[in-house]
This record gives sequence, C-alpha cells and structure tokens, in this order.
Amino acid sequence: MGSNSFGTIFRITTWGESHGKAMGVVIDGCPAGLHLHEDEINRELALRAPGGSPYTSPRKEADLAEIYSGLFEGKTTGAPLSIIIKNQDSDSAPYHALKETLRPGHANFTYLEKYGLFDYRGGGRASARETVCRVAAGAVAKKLLAHFRITLSARIGDTLKEAALEAKEAHDSIGGIVELTTSDLPTGLGDPIYEKLSANLAKAIFSIPAVKGFEIGSGFASASMRGSAHNDPFTQVDGKIRTKTNHAGGILGGITTGMPLVLRVAFKPASSIKQEQESVTVNGEKTTLKFSEKARHDPCVAIRAVPVVEAMCALVLADHLLMNRLSKL
Amino acid sequence: MGSNSFGTIFRITTWGESHGKAMGVVIDGCPAGLHLHEDEINRELALRAPGGSPYTSPRKEADLAEIYSGLFEGKTTGAPLSIIIKNQDSDSAPYHALKETLRPGHANFTYLEKYGLFDYRGGGRASARETVCRVAAGAVAKKLLAHFRITLSARIGDTLKEAALEAKEAHDSIGGIVELTTSDLPTGLGDPIYEKLSANLAKAIFSIPAVKGFEIGSGFASASMRGSAHNDPFTQVDGKIRTKTNHAGGILGGITTGMPLVLRVAFKPASSIKQEQESVTVNGEKTTLKFSEKARHDPCVAIRAVPVVEAMCALVLADHLLMNRLSKL
Amino acid sequence: MGSNSFGTIFRITTWGESHGKAMGVVIDGCPAGLHLHEDEINRELALRAPGGSPYTSPRKEADLAEIYSGLFEGKTTGAPLSIIIKNQDSDSAPYHALKETLRPGHANFTYLEKYGLFDYRGGGRASARETVCRVAAGAVAKKLLAHFRITLSARIGDTLKEAALEAKEAHDSIGGIVELTTSDLPTGLGDPIYEKLSANLAKAIFSIPAVKGFEIGSGFASASMRGSAHNDPFTQVDGKIRTKTNHAGGILGGITTGMPLVLRVAFKPASSIKQEQESVTVNGEKTTLKFSEKARHDPCVAIRAVPVVEAMCALVLADHLLMNRLSKL
Amino acid sequence: MGSNSFGTIFRITTWGESHGKAMGVVIDGCPAGLHLHEDEINRELALRAPGGSPYTSPRKEADLAEIYSGLFEGKTTGAPLSIIIKNQDSDSAPYHALKETLRPGHANFTYLEKYGLFDYRGGGRASARETVCRVAAGAVAKKLLAHFRITLSARIGDTLKEAALEAKEAHDSIGGIVELTTSDLPTGLGDPIYEKLSANLAKAIFSIPAVKGFEIGSGFASASMRGSAHNDPFTQVDGKIRTKTNHAGGILGGITTGMPLVLRVAFKPASSIKQEQESVTVNGEKTTLKFSEKARHDPCVAIRAVPVVEAMCALVLADHLLMNRLSKL
Repeated sequence: MGSNSFGTIFRITTWGESHGKAMGVVIDGCPAGLHLHEDEINRELALRAPGGSPYTSPRKEADLAEIYSGLFEGKTTGAPLSIIIKNQDSDSAPYHALKETLRPGHANFTYLEKYGLFDYRGGGRASARETVCRVAAGAVAKKLLAHFRITLSARIGDTLKEAALEAKEAHDSIGGIVELTTSDLPTGLGDPIYEKLSANLAKAIFSIPAVKGFEIGSGFASASMRGSAHNDPFTQVDGKIRTKTNHAGGILGGITTGMPLVLRVAFKPASSIKQEQESVTVNGEKTTLKFSEKARHDPCVAIRAVPVVEAMCALVLADHLLMNRLSKL
Repeated sequence: MGSNSFGTIFRITTWGESHGKAMGVVIDGCPAGLHLHEDEINRELALRAPGGSPYTSPRKEADLAEIYSGLFEGKTTGAPLSIIIKNQDSDSAPYHALKETLRPGHANFTYLEKYGLFDYRGGGRASARETVCRVAAGAVAKKLLAHFRITLSARIGDTLKEAALEAKEAHDSIGGIVELTTSDLPTGLGDPIYEKLSANLAKAIFSIPAVKGFEIGSGFASASMRGSAHNDPFTQVDGKIRTKTNHAGGILGGITTGMPLVLRVAFKPASSIKQEQESVTVNGEKTTLKFSEKARHDPCVAIRAVPVVEAMCALVLADHLLMNRLSKL
Repeated sequence: MGSNSFGTIFRITTWGESHGKAMGVVIDGCPAGLHLHEDEINRELALRAPGGSPYTSPRKEADLAEIYSGLFEGKTTGAPLSIIIKNQDSDSAPYHALKETLRPGHANFTYLEKYGLFDYRGGGRASARETVCRVAAGAVAKKLLAHFRITLSARIGDTLKEAALEAKEAHDSIGGIVELTTSDLPTGLGDPIYEKLSANLAKAIFSIPAVKGFEIGSGFASASMRGSAHNDPFTQVDGKIRTKTNHAGGILGGITTGMPLVLRVAFKPASSIKQEQESVTVNGEKTTLKFSEKARHDPCVAIRAVPVVEAMCALVLADHLLMNRLSKL
Repeated sequence: MGSNSFGTIFRITTWGESHGKAMGVVIDGCPAGLHLHEDEINRELALRAPGGSPYTSPRKEADLAEIYSGLFEGKTTGAPLSIIIKNQDSDSAPYHALKETLRPGHANFTYLEKYGLFDYRGGGRASARETVCRVAAGAVAKKLLAHFRITLSARIGDTLKEAALEAKEAHDSIGGIVELTTSDLPTGLGDPIYEKLSANLAKAIFSIPAVKGFEIGSGFASASMRGSAHNDPFTQVDGKIRTKTNHAGGILGGITTGMPLVLRVAFKPASSIKQEQESVTVNGEKTTLKFSEKARHDPCVAIRAVPVVEAMCALVLADHLLMNRLSKL
C-alpha cells in the first residue's frame, strides 16, 4: 500500500501540504556510491520554479532542497535520502472564503467525500505543490541515469505559450501537450505482463495532477494505421540491432528495444480561473465561485509540468534499470 | 515485486504460456462470502473466445475455467481462488521456423534481450493468450462490483468491423479504439498522489498487449480546451452532488466524483500479418518473414480486447472499492 | 498485500485446501536460465511425505509435483513457475461431525471469527497440508542456492523421536525443536533496518503452523551473557575476514557475516490428539471433542516440519541473494 | 521493496543517521479523523530517552518530535504524517579513530561488505538511534489502538537492572529479556498463511537491533510439553468465547483469539564495551579495539528497548486492525 509512495526498487515517498511547514521526499533503494550534491537537485527545482515567466503563476518561492540523510562524503550510502524543501510565501486567507464551496475541476469535493475532512489551504495535499518533491527525487534519478549514459528531455510546442498568454488575458486557462524523448535506451528494461515499462510510465504520468491522456510512439494515431505500415522493420546498425522506424516508441511487449522512448501527455486546462463559476456548497446549496484578481494561478499547467514529466519518467527508468539486474542468473 | 501480479488488495497473479499445458490465475484478497460459480467465469470467457466471428482469429478453443480453491459451498472463503484454463489446439510447428527471426512489432527480440532465452511457441508468455486469465479474474471482480451495484461496459465503433474485414482481405491488420463507461460510481474511490484511480487504470490498460494510448474523460481533446469550458459545474440532483457535464470522466484529483467513469484505449494494428516483411535474425543477419496463408491471426486486436479492457477496469475498481474501507477511522 | 504470498523478488503465492482438488504454488521472480526438473522437486516432497515412519501421520499420499509453466527446454524462462500437487486420499466425513465444535489449539475458531465461514474439511486452508507448496517452492530456491554454492540442513535432536513414540502411545502429542545450519554464506545478504535477513527469517519461520519460538545464534541464552563473552572477535582466515566464534549465528546488523547461519525453532505439540477434550460449540455451548482411534495425526509436528524449515530458509536466502544485486552502483 | 519501510496499510518509512541532521519517519495509511498532538509523541519519546537512569547511556538529548504534515485542526487528514526529531549532542571525533577497525558484534563490517562504504559516525544508519523513529510512529499507532480500546505494556524483570549495574562496573554489558502483554484483543486480527499476526510480530521484533530470540505464549517451553497440557480449552465467559488457559499467547493459526497477546524478546549484550577487544582492520590486519572511558554506551540495551518493543507491536496491531476491514463482504 502506501498511496504516497512510487516505484519498486528505486522508491520514493512524499509528504507535505501546500501551506504546511515543508514538502519532503524520502528516496529508498538508491544504490550506494552515487555522487550527489544538493546543488544538482536545486538546479532542477529552478526549472520548475514559478514566477520565472509570464506564462506561469507569479508565486515567488525560492525552492531550496536540503538533503537530511543518506549522503556521506559526497556519495549515497544505500541508506534513505531524505530531501526537504521548506514552504514560504503562503497566505492561506483567500482559501478560508472558499472552504465551504466545491471548486469545479478541483479535488476538494472528492477529498471531502473520501476523508470527511480537508486541509483546504492552498489545496492542501492535493496541490500541485507536491510535484516539487517529484522533481527533487527525479534529479537523483537523473544522476543515476546519467551514470548509465541515459538522458531524457521533455518539451511543449511553441504555440502553446501564445495560447497561454491569450487565455490569461481572458481570465481563463488552457490545456496543452508535453512530449518526451530519450536517448537510445539499454535493451531489456521493463518487465513482462503487469510491470511493463509502458504500464509503469502510464501510471507515473497519470499520477501527475491534471493529466487526461497519455500515449507512446504512434499512440492514438496507431488506431487508424495498418500493420504493414506500423510494424518497425528490424535492421542492423553498427553491429547493433535497431528498427528502421520507431512507431513502437522504444517499447515492444513492455520492454525496451534500444530505440529512443517517445511519449506524449495531455494536460487539461487549469481548473482555477478568474471568472465567476457556478457551483454548490459542501451542503449542496447553489453558490458561485470567483477567485480574486490577485490570485496566483497558472494559465497553463502543461508549461510548468515539463520538468515533472521528465522527473516521473526518470524515476520509472531508474527503477527498471535496477530491476533489470534480476532477470538472469 | 512480482511482475505477474496486479492489484493491491484484490490481487491477481497469472501464469502460463500460449502453448504450455494451461493458463492460470490466483486471486488473493477477495473478501469471504461472495457467491460465485464457475459458469459465471465461463460466460465471460465465451465473450473473449476467438473463432466466433469473421473479424477475429479462427483459433478454436473451448476456454473452460475450473476453480481449484477458495470456494466452499458456493461462496468465497477468503482463501485464494485458483482458476485454471487448459490449453488446447496448439500446434507449435509453425513457430519453429521463426525461432531465429526477429518479428517486427513483436516481443521476441525484447524478451531475448532481457532473459537470454525465449519460449517462442505461440509467443510463449508474451502471447495475448495470457489475457484469458485477466478475463477470468475480471469475472470475479465484476461479481464483487455487482454486489455493490456497479456495472461497466466497453465497446468499439461500428465502422471498425468493416475496416477489419478490409484489412484481412489485404493480408493486413488494423488498429482500433475501445471505449469504456460505467454506471454512476460511489464517490471516494481512488487514493491521492500515486494511487490515483486514474493512475491505476492507466497502468491496468497499458499492461494489455498492443495498447498505445489511453485517455480519461476529455482526454487529448482537453489539451486545446479552455478552463471555462472544461470545468464541470457542480450541481445537486436528487439530493446528491453531481456535475452538469463530465469532462473529468468521473475522476477529480484521482478520486471518483460519483459520475460515470469514461475512458478510451488506442490499440495498434496486430503485428502478425500475412505479408512478407523485412527483418533480421537473432544474430543480426538480414532475412524476411512471412506467415503462412493458414496462420491464424486477428486482423484487429481491438475487437477481441473489449472484454479484456472491461476485465482490467473491473479489477482496478474492485481493488479501490476495498481500499476505500481504509480511509477513515 | 496478498496474505498468501511470501518473498519480495523471489516471490511465491500458494493456494489450495487440504481436501480440495489440489495444492499449488506460483513462483514469480526466479531468474531465467536455471536448470530445473520436476524430479528435483519431487525428491524434496518425498522427504516431507507422511506415512514414511512411525513418528508421523499414516496418511498416505504420493505427492507428485507437476510444473505447468515457466520452464522451456529444461531451463527457467523468467516467466512464473506454476507447480501443482494433486490431493488424494482425503475423506472429509470425520470432519463433518466436528464442524460445529471449536477445536482447542486449532484455527477453526479464529477463521470463523475472521471470515464468518470456514472450509472445515481437513482443516481447509489452515491445514499444514499447505506446507507441501512451501517445500516444492523451496526445492527451486535450493537449486538457486546450489548454483551459488550455498547449502543448508535442518535436523531434530535424537531423543525427540523417542518422546514422540511415547506420546503417541499415550494418545497424546509432543512439541520439539528444529535446528538449521548452513554452509558459509556470501557476505552482504540482508538489508538494513526492516528487511534484515534475521527479520525475514523470523517471519518465514513464524509463518509455519505450530511455531512458538525462534532464535538465531546465541538466542535466548544471550540474555544472560556478557558482551565480553558474546562478541565474536574478527580474524583473518585464508585471506577472508571471519569471526573466531559465531554467537551472532552468521548475522550482524541484519546482514550476513560470511559465517554459517544458525537458528532454532520451537514447535508446540500438535493440537489434534486422541483424548477427550473440553470445548464449546460455535454458539458457545459446552461440548467435548474426541478424534476417532483411526484418525491420522502426527504426534510430533516438529519431525515433519524439518523440510519445511529448510524450505522457508531457502526461500529467504534466495530472495536476499537476488536483492543484494541492488545495493551498489 | 523499501528496506526502510515497515507495515502494509499503516506503513512507516524511516530515515536518518545517528550523527546526521535529524531522524525522521513518514507514516502513510493512518486513517483520517484521528485526534493527535505532538505532545503525545513526545511523552513516548521521553520514556525512551537516555540519560534518565544509571542503567542506560548518559547521552543527553532532548528528543523533540515535530509533526510536519498530515495534521489539520488537530486531526489526521489521511495524508502522510511526517515526524522529524533533530539530532543534537553528537561528537563524531571518537569514531574517526575507529573507521578502519571492524567492531566485534557491530554492523560496520557487514555494511562495508554490502555497500562498499559506511557512515561510521556513531554507527550511522545502523545505530540504535533509528529506534527513536519507531517510538514516534508507535505513539501514533497507540493512539489508533486506544481508539479501539486496545492497550499494551512491555517490561523487564527486576533483577536485570542490578545485573546491568554490575556489568557496567566491570566495563562490560549484559543481555536481557523483555516481555510484552496486551489487553484482550479483538478476534480476527492477523491473516492466514504468510501474514499471520505472529509472523509479522516476529519480523517486527527481529528488526530491532540486538534481538536474538522471540517467542509467543508458551514459546520454547512448548517444545517439551504434551498436547493434552498445551491445548487451551475453549469456554464461555460473559457471553464471549474465551480459552481457560493461554498457552497460545493470544494467537491461533496466526489470528487473534481474543485473549491477551503474550510475547518475550531476548536481547544480546550490547556490543560496545570499555574493554580491549581483538579484531582486524578493514584490510584484515590484526588490531585491538578499545573505547575511551568517556564513551557513552548502554550496559544493557534490553532496558532501553522496552518502549521500542511496545512501539513495534503497536505498529503491527494497528496494521492488522485496518487489514481486518478487508476480510468479509
């Protein structure tokens, strides 16, 4: 169990609420001997930071990760890495007014139904603030991947930024698509049947707030393709077996082919918008909801999600890289 | 670990190869007291059976499930249910000719890379034959859902059957999309953060062979929508809180809203086609691959996957239905 | 979850009731490439077989294991091994008379409390018959250990057999102690904190029916020892670091020292005896309980438990042997 | 996986080294709605604190737990509880001198073998300092147990304190036995086969540093008892089914009978003593080892382990209390 943990061997557990004291992540299962420095984590956090561009929320928070355990003389020891990021700049007052109102597109209704109570300040545990822990843990996973010469990179299309600015002016928000590709991967990553690399990537991505769709390689387009066009012919390149095309997106039968991984993620538009919206209270009475002009919200969560998508994929790859040590005698 | 297991509380473990003696599934964590009969499983297996229509593979196999344990006087006892389905009608000869050839779009290359050896007969463990176990286990999960008045139903579009026939005539295959919807769900199913209902559905679906894409509710379309249009306004209907629209597809923050679950799955075209294809041998030498005219392959895996999509969703829902007993004091 | 599974990487799931059709075990996580033959499993089962000596129950059952999956051309493939042992020679009639009576020292009361119903025939799922699956799986684990040159051996004291015969004559039963030692082990097996080798051995052993005590190395005797006598001095032997004594029993801080593992297990006397016993019915009414003269029960479960203790330890060692591949970069 | 986690539903993950910045524990799976205050945790930590008596180590450290997440308006929210205890008063200098020396009875050899490096300061991750996290988490588990009217209490024998003082004067250490009993428990706690309550207690207890033996109810004494004396007759008391005696120690077939749980734990003498000891260096060269007169070590770890034994048992009981919600329809 443990709904706040992710991964099997390289396993993270996150904690913290948006307006609590801090956010944190414990990484268990990182092999001993990995060189690591707090700065490497903080560089990744800076990429996720809000306030850096007109496309994202103006909340200013110097996210600084501190490693509390698991490191000795600059290397991981095999003991759990505890990384803590303090919360700052959180004014809970605007949320008090909304504590009785169900927010359309938001999780406060479902959390209340599940738990009977909800830390409504800033979205509490349901806030996208939690993703800071994923990026911090992903930075460690990337170090492990780099050690094995694997790199990955996510991006959005150029027109998305324009659409985000337009939406912002209209006091609205917009969805978006993030695409991720990797360098050539080692073959053999991913397990058969229920622990397919593709299945674990799908879970990792759908655990990110606001994700509504996920595809690998040819994805939804493959539904209208024929096998003769879709099958990637095998060939030999520089003594290695490769495929001529990569409709598979780097995975066959749940296991890596050695080709780059290619995937796409659809994000819905942010649910928090500065327009008046119909809703009901927790007791079912009609009401309207409107955020103040000063409220800080991202017009497009997809833009800020780019490093989160990278982090989640890095976590899955790190996990399967270790898992793959177990397949043969 | 356990790459052949799925689920946390209602947990299945499957075993068996396409051309081995039998396929089997062990279900652990089914509550005691559920009425169950082998016939209920066999009715579901009949829906999955090949040979029933021109759109699917002509392999004829009377899939009969036998319950070996966990049942006493017609009810589950809390002990593991072991369900076994014998394999019949398997001629391994055609596969011997292919044992040295990498099959485009197929898993034999990746399994060989991972394990160093491969039971190539009929696709071995990588065969879609394994899904018979999922459908058998899904039948038990559906019984549990029915006990709590939850139903689900998957389907393909009408034009897909035509496209499949055309592809078959052209000795080719075609992809397709399966859509699943449910009755209204209880609120509160799904856990936050990494065990979101959506994340576990994504994993469940991407563990099915040939899946390339998955979306919930508005899915990929949400990427070009604005928040003001996408947000589902809350309202009260018959004393219950509901949303007027259902772009969310029944899930907010990973937890059910009480509205129907809606999801879509993209399947690639089947990789086995009766055309000559370029490939290489396991040693990297150029070769070509052609299945005999008599080979039995589905022109469209999406059609036969309909009950598998249902089964996997039923398993996830049954699991979260039990998990939800743990959320409050 | 999965209360019928054991192990993390080398993971077994067992199913079956004493008087059901068969007993079975699925082994997931056995590395590919291990030579294995059904006969190797059946040799281990023969050691566990009842009826072979006056000290044990006369129930005659030719336990024959059949491997249903996971093996190809004499080697494991990385796919799950499904092993099935048919049940024979089971007459459920004597148990019908007892279905309303709580049996002292037996699990029928607690199962009824937990599940609300109980397959009382032969003890159902609670029967020691389940251990046949452990021995079968243990045989595979031993093959893996043998591949890495590890052997283990369990035994009882000589006087126990005499005591068992005396108890049998008195229509009674007797407890006993089983001791297990291994060859020198590789260093580094066992994880820190909660996955100590010692902790997992303790769990493995206490999962065997009728176990009441477990100790490693100096065990309970260490409670009255002083540190100066208990500490095992390190020394160098043939270029390897060893300890002069082995009060630790082969484990320090939960991780193997390279010395032999030494442990002892206390079994209670069998609860089924041929004397009249006081009890109550499931409704709490006073009653007495007496097994017929013909009933087949072991006077001393410790004697038959010897191969079960070996099997459980082999499973734990196999698991940690694989787990240890994950500790370093 | 996750060797620093314990429990299935009520699941803890601990982190921190003896001489690092802090120790911490994340509790995932505590139901929402439990009243909790930091003071309740700190009261338990005070019982574990060193320096409070002549029998224990004089290290003075005000262990103050701070709850960083998971609490809102005095109640748990269902989100993970993160509890952090700062480290103070740690002088690593004495350990530098020992960094090349293998310490008899201590884990530095095995950690070095496993990980290739070791944070030797104060025992690093292998230090009993980690148990502060168990006691903090155990305090939360006890609150949950109290909500269901379950209490537990551990103790040592009176003569152990005298023996500890004598050993201390002799610059030596002594082992000891801790016994734990509970109030009457609800019936039905514990799962069959591999998740027996007894098996999980055995694992919990053997995960505590320095434990060498564990027994439940009649324990090792049962090995020389006869069934007619050992079987606990069922009877009815105040409308409840109970047993007249409790050799079972509260558990039959791995599941609670409703009688009090009774268990005993054997601790070895502390390995750190102020006498000169033979050893070898990490390179296998002969050396001797002697702690300074000022070094702070417990002469008897069993005495300080009392609240740790309580905490681990509370964690297991809390876990099974929740798990038991899943057994029936």
